[in-house]
Amino acid sequence: MLRTGETICAPATSGRGAIAVLRISGPKSLEICQRIFFPADRKIKIDNQKGYSIVYGEIRSENELIDDVLVSIFRAPLSYTGEDSVEISCHASPYIKHSILELMIKHGALPAQPGEFTQRAFLNGKMDLSQAEAVADIVASESRAAHRIAMSQMRGEFSDEINILRADLLHFASLIELELDFGEEDVEFANRKELEDIVKRVLKMAKELASSFSLGNAIKNGVPVVITGSPNTGKSTLLNTLLKEDKAIVSEIPGTTRDAIEDTAIIDGIQFRFTDTAGLRDTDDIIENLGIRKTHEKIRTAAIILLVIDINDSLIQINDTLERVRTTVRESDSNMIVLINKTDAAKPGKGDEIRNNISLAGDESMLFISALTGKGIDGIKETLVRIAGNASQDSDNVIISNIRHYHALLQVINSLERVKQGLKENLQEDLIATDIRQAIHYLGEITGQITSDEILDNIFRNFCIGK
Amino acid sequence: MLRTGETICAPATSGRGAIAVLRISGPKSLEICQRIFFPADRKIKIDNQKGYSIVYGEIRSENELIDDVLVSIFRAPLSYTGEDSVEISCHASPYIKHSILELMIKHGALPAQPGEFTQRAFLNGKMDLSQAEAVADIVASESRAAHRIAMSQMRGEFSDEINILRADLLHFASLIELELDFGEEDVEFANRKELEDIVKRVLKMAKELASSFSLGNAIKNGVPVVITGSPNTGKSTLLNTLLKEDKAIVSEIPGTTRDAIEDTAIIDGIQFRFTDTAGLRDTDDIIENLGIRKTHEKIRTAAIILLVIDINDSLIQINDTLERVRTTVRESDSNMIVLINKTDAAKPGKGDEIRNNISLAGDESMLFISALTGKGIDGIKETLVRIAGNASQDSDNVIISNIRHYHALLQVINSLERVKQGLKENLQEDLIATDIRQAIHYLGEITGQITSDEILDNIFRNFCIGK
Repeated sequence: MLRTGETICAPATSGRGAIAVLRISGPKSLEICQRIFFPADRKIKIDNQKGYSIVYGEIRSENELIDDVLVSIFRAPLSYTGEDSVEISCHASPYIKHSILELMIKHGALPAQPGEFTQRAFLNGKMDLSQAEAVADIVASESRAAHRIAMSQMRGEFSDEINILRADLLHFASLIELELDFGEEDVEFANRKELEDIVKRVLKMAKELASSFSLGNAIKNGVPVVITGSPNTGKSTLLNTLLKEDKAIVSEIPGTTRDAIEDTAIIDGIQFRFTDTAGLRDTDDIIENLGIRKTHEKIRTAAIILLVIDINDSLIQINDTLERVRTTVRESDSNMIVLINKTDAAKPGKGDEIRNNISLAGDESMLFISALTGKGIDGIKETLVRIAGNASQDSDNVIISNIRHYHALLQVINSLERVKQGLKENLQEDLIATDIRQAIHYLGEITGQITSDEILDNIFRNFCIGK
Repeated sequence: MLRTGETICAPATSGRGAIAVLRISGPKSLEICQRIFFPADRKIKIDNQKGYSIVYGEIRSENELIDDVLVSIFRAPLSYTGEDSVEISCHASPYIKHSILELMIKHGALPAQPGEFTQRAFLNGKMDLSQAEAVADIVASESRAAHRIAMSQMRGEFSDEINILRADLLHFASLIELELDFGEEDVEFANRKELEDIVKRVLKMAKELASSFSLGNAIKNGVPVVITGSPNTGKSTLLNTLLKEDKAIVSEIPGTTRDAIEDTAIIDGIQFRFTDTAGLRDTDDIIENLGIRKTHEKIRTAAIILLVIDINDSLIQINDTLERVRTTVRESDSNMIVLINKTDAAKPGKGDEIRNNISLAGDESMLFISALTGKGIDGIKETLVRIAGNASQDSDNVIISNIRHYHALLQVINSLERVKQGLKENLQEDLIATDIRQAIHYLGEITGQITSDEILDNIFRNFCIGK
């Protein structure tokens, strides 16, 4: 895939809007454009134009007029890729896009591979690897929280953390390796206490980063919320109410309506992925039991469980349901919100009865709502956001959301645990040095200081074309 | 909808590409951008930037970084709308697009209506109405022929023709109305012969334009081709072969693959809309007869009929099928291509037998093919293109493809026929003048010299947002 001497082209926009943008980047970008683009002002030669300027004119193929276009010129190194490049803004017709790309290819450009523009930005030192990966996450982000994580990563905040860890470990390695060189003479350059401190510090930070992954991943892909409860407690009404309000917000600005995903809602900048479940109850029916087993499986994968209870149920029924769900919830690391529903039709005294007799565990909360009238829905949203957003919204901690980084960090942690153990057991320096070098290697893979064609291919293959 | 004092904004691209472009146009465009956009080079003030320049920087909402963007600046009147306007090129994430539009709206912009940018271009004299309408056709064009008609219309070639007709009629009207003013004195300023000549000439041109509509419409929406023939003659194989080759061509350049419409193929720049039909044969089965009646209906609406015949059928069978299809074909104005199929499995002598014994009408052609092996498929394509493209590809005639223009031209023709009749019958000048004014009115409606809010609303309502 590495073919940096070539000039590449691709559409940078997709779909059927009013305009489309086509990109060309590489040493021959301007030359190729000059052959197919004819400025309205004939005195203008795009070859002489400064970077960051726009020229209006026509794309022509021999005698056929393809389109009136705007051509934006960027000159190396002040472009996205770091190379000379041009963006052509044309009418978004399939015929026009196709014709212009065909013309560029005819004059020597190659069709770009997925992510090839960003790959060039990486290879030309415009960004490191984790920043490049953030570009794809930014394009995909639907919620403010997901956007925030991706933007922080693209800005290099994650890379900065990694580089601090790496610098610490390099210092450690230099001390150990110095010792190694003088090994025969039994000199101990490195203060063992200092070494231990470094490893502990780096290990702690690496673990914190790694443990942020489950949150980061939930934010990136939507926080999984399962709605459960006995049959006919109003689970579907609740789901509809939660989804409906979000849709109204999204469709306020025309043209921005997203592809409808039935069960996703963005609340206060965080995306939640709601799953409705079959009602929970004791039954001998085999089919129904299968449904209930599935419900329990879903509960295990959820980050948050909304347990819906009919306010008019007996205390025995309520306690029974609570216990059954708790058993499953305890197997996972999730939070439970108990929703006492149908307050609009409550029998007298039921509210107080429940409040006084149902006891909650420390990480559970209880809300009185009416899914039908909308009462208490805001409270549910606040609680969802509080649980999901605790760490993401207001903290300055770096959160990772990329599984490749997570796996690399796990390797770093493994290596460092061995180093720690080795120091404790007074292991030979060369063995310790090997583990340290491994940890450094994996940190370098995250930012791309150490890389291979295979890693690069894997990363950029998942990009869209034109990015 | 007319609110030209306002500043409007909208996404100009749709879908999930690498980048998205947002547009803002109107007197406050630059001011609004200045409030939300922060150039990387702090010395730059976008308010001071020249038109046709690009600035790199950040969009921020209070303290939140929304995105790194490129901002393209256009100054009145040198912009698409003729107003100050700005295009913001950002990452194509739903969250980012939504946030930037929200920011613009918060600072005083209004969400644009469909077609409102182009409507402003029209109102500011950047293009006339038929040119504005062509913009939507250009965006929608899938084939070279459709693109060519739309481009010619956007370039004003159709408007030029209309303006010539209009000028002629205005001259005519002035002569007639002068006569009218002096009516009492029975002076005949206008040479009746000259008047008749003008009307005849304009009428001829108007009729030519109107009659180009069926071709223009077929090119714009795809030339309707019906594949018919007796059962098991290989109609579906033929359709697949015709479609398959097109799809291979289209998908050569990544990222440009169109939404698959099962039965459409672009051959040599012309879009054909293929319909397969139930087999034709005599039958008493009521259901099957319904299918066959439908086939005949489809044949009537087709521009081209591909009649598929099994080479091994008897001459009697072949003549029988031919006659049956011809009866229907004759009712329409369509062309028939007779395809003698299965030449790969022909019995000895069948080819010559058919060649020597089957006689064709003047507008019919016959080809020997094998849908299975692909033999003769190129010949079919050439014939299709020849029939459909005769008038479109190589002629410089203006072709109309817009039904509004067609209806206006029919009104013009009606009015002029009455004028012609009136001149012949020596009708009173004031009656003739009324009809002439009507013809002028309808011509003016085409280019927008005469217009109403209702017409404008109808036209621009069909545009996409952001155009």
